[in-house]
Amino acid sequence: MVNFLINKLKRCRVCGSTAVVFIPYANAAFCKSHFIAFYERKIKKTLDDYGFKGGKVLVGVSGGKDSMALIYALKRLQNDLNIDLYAVHIDLGIHEYSEKSKKIVSSFLSDLGIEFEIVNVRRFINASIPKVVQTSRRPACAICGLIKRYILNSIAYENDYDYIATGHNLDDVSTYLLKAFLTHRSEDILRAPTPVSPPKKEYKLVGRLRPQLFLSERDNQLYCELNHIPYIDDPCPLSSGASLFKYKLLWTKILETNPVSQINFVKTVFETREKIDESVQKLDFCKYCGYPTTSDDKICAVCRIKLRVNKLKIKTDNRKH
Amino acid sequence: MVNFLINKLKRCRVCGSTAVVFIPYANAAFCKSHFIAFYERKIKKTLDDYGFKGGKVLVGVSGGKDSMALIYALKRLQNDLNIDLYAVHIDLGIHEYSEKSKKIVSSFLSDLGIEFEIVNVRRFINASIPKVVQTSRRPACAICGLIKRYILNSIAYENDYDYIATGHNLDDVSTYLLKAFLTHRSEDILRAPTPVSPPKKEYKLVGRLRPQLFLSERDNQLYCELNHIPYIDDPCPLSSGASLFKYKLLWTKILETNPVSQINFVKTVFETREKIDESVQKLDFCKYCGYPTTSDDKICAVCRIKLRVNKLKIKTDNRKH
Repeated sequence: MVNFLINKLKRCRVCGSTAVVFIPYANAAFCKSHFIAFYERKIKKTLDDYGFKGGKVLVGVSGGKDSMALIYALKRLQNDLNIDLYAVHIDLGIHEYSEKSKKIVSSFLSDLGIEFEIVNVRRFINASIPKVVQTSRRPACAICGLIKRYILNSIAYENDYDYIATGHNLDDVSTYLLKAFLTHRSEDILRAPTPVSPPKKEYKLVGRLRPQLFLSERDNQLYCELNHIPYIDDPCPLSSGASLFKYKLLWTKILETNPVSQINFVKTVFETREKIDESVQKLDFCKYCGYPTTSDDKICAVCRIKLRVNKLKIKTDNRKH
Repeated sequence: MVNFLINKLKRCRVCGSTAVVFIPYANAAFCKSHFIAFYERKIKKTLDDYGFKGGKVLVGVSGGKDSMALIYALKRLQNDLNIDLYAVHIDLGIHEYSEKSKKIVSSFLSDLGIEFEIVNVRRFINASIPKVVQTSRRPACAICGLIKRYILNSIAYENDYDYIATGHNLDDVSTYLLKAFLTHRSEDILRAPTPVSPPKKEYKLVGRLRPQLFLSERDNQLYCELNHIPYIDDPCPLSSGASLFKYKLLWTKILETNPVSQINFVKTVFETREKIDESVQKLDFCKYCGYPTTSDDKICAVCRIKLRVNKLKIKTDNRKH
């Protein structure tokens, strides 16, 4: 369990009882129940502020603290948010790590009484994530993210969900954006996730919800601990040396100067970006799977991976004979 | 003199002779003459990249390292840049500080053979900068900057210059922008200076050049030292406690992670901003001085200061009688 207790005796901002957590960006201490209320209010407000009106929502639950906190909070907020809630876990085939994740997610979702499905990544790309990563020079997290987005969208689209919800947090998006600015990748600024993207069913794209985009990783962890929500705390064994790490560390230094800076940064980027009249990107449909792609040869990134994996399989099989 | 010599023996990237400076963002060491060439090439490239084609240029020279390096470099580049070069120094009336600045600037510009004028801030606002600062709650640097911009523009406009050039450096603009992002001031992102703004003579606005916008304060200092250019090194006595300081310090930490990050950051912001279709701001002309203003009551910010100063003067004079 993290040490989230505060050193000096502080009083809850709301009720004045002994506080158990201190939230630097809010400059506020809270008791257990008022921290939970603060956390859930932020989720509701984020979705409201970005125009979400409800619908049929499929939550991607990996078993990490972000998505476990998300599904729990959305379950509690489902009436307020006017949502029908379902969950899906993708078995990535990352050996013991995936086995452990699958187990913890299934048992938690059953206890919560949420309807869920577990899908195997092999059904979509004919190989496990470690196998796919071996066939590419791109970072593991980039490939895995791409595949997970594709799978979530196609399951949601085929089953008539309006939105997918995922556990992206403030540290994720602020680090992604900071890296984009400090490495001169202007195109990534337009690509960074927003709290709500509406569905574009004509392009076979369901909407996206990232309700925790203004909540930090630490907030999610505290919410899990205080609600006794189980989660996988080990980092993914494939993620070591992710290049975002040094930019994540920078935030620690920046937050020492100004504890609200991380939220300010993300909101300012969003506001600036909203002023940009994004000309509609040319979207075609992939000639193999029928889902949208921007690629000129009409093969989407996931089908390209699948083709490469299959080709390598045939080669290996031939060698065996 | 700053310690800009490098500790370990390095070779000039261009000629292989013993280097005297190391430039982290370029990951390159240079001998004296090749650093000077590197510096001047950057000035030329910045102006070219942002579409500057030449004209009649008035340089504001305060006596600090940035503007002293600027006038010297522009003098050397005047044929390449296709410019007619003139200078102006504004005597701000900040006691010994202004006296010292005026002396160093006059003697340097005379030696360089540049035609120049020295104008007194009192001619425009009927008081010295320290007096004006006393009448306002705004930070000294904000008021002084506003007044200097106004004076430079009106002198340049009335004397048919095409552009004003000023010594804004990379540390200035990157700190201004970082603060804007980290304090959630989206409006400041659109307001931040660019290397070249074309003239809008119909609004009585001459163009603006900031040729050192991708050169650091340290680059300017090195250029001064290596060319034996004199400059005032003392900070302005009114600038103490400027709120930008903590964001300037943050850059030191960020640059340890990635030495190119400061230039990347500014270029990425500029590129993002270029995509924004800035709707033309409503501009009126001030009913007192005739220069442009966005204010609803048609009184520009400088005339407003002048009115306040005059009112206080009348009060004080009345008390004396």
